[in-house]
Amino acid sequence: MKKEVKNQLDEYRESIDNIDSMLVFLLAERFKITEKVGKLKADYNLPASDKNREAKQRARLERLSAKAGIKPGFISRLLNFIIGEVVKNHKKLKKNS
Amino acid sequence: MKKEVKNQLDEYRESIDNIDSMLVFLLAERFKITEKVGKLKADYNLPASDKNREAKQRARLERLSAKAGIKPGFISRLLNFIIGEVVKNHKKLKKNS
Repeated sequence: MKKEVKNQLDEYRESIDNIDSMLVFLLAERFKITEKVGKLKADYNLPASDKNREAKQRARLERLSAKAGIKPGFISRLLNFIIGEVVKNHKKLKKNS
Repeated sequence: MKKEVKNQLDEYRESIDNIDSMLVFLLAERFKITEKVGKLKADYNLPASDKNREAKQRARLERLSAKAGIKPGFISRLLNFIIGEVVKNHKKLKKNS
């Protein structure tokens, strides 16, 4: 690989790493809140998942990501992944409560 | 659902929505950079995926997410998901170049 190409690639990767660090800390904050939601749901015996809420989240995030130039479907697939992890935890909290 | 519980849930969900907006714009920025990486790789005929780079990213993000209190494995699974989307695009860029 030519030195200029390597330097350019390294520069891009540095920015990706910075963004990934932000994503980690943002997700940590998100999990802190979804954990509180999970506890609240467990305490009041509410269902772990809420299809109506999820549909609203999905529609809002697809609108937002279209504005931001993200391909349709990506955010919805990402949300499936994250909600899947969150619902797993809510079910655990319910079992342990 | 009791009014206080509903209010508390709404408050949490507002914070989740704010965080999700930040995630969307951060991911949009990340895609802008990975697209540049993809173009660079296509222009210089470099392979679309780089196992060595991915292993380093994975290790760094797992360390970081452990500090942030995120469960082991989550970030690695998330990275698989995002890299999968990015590599799909890099392959497309290569085909079209």
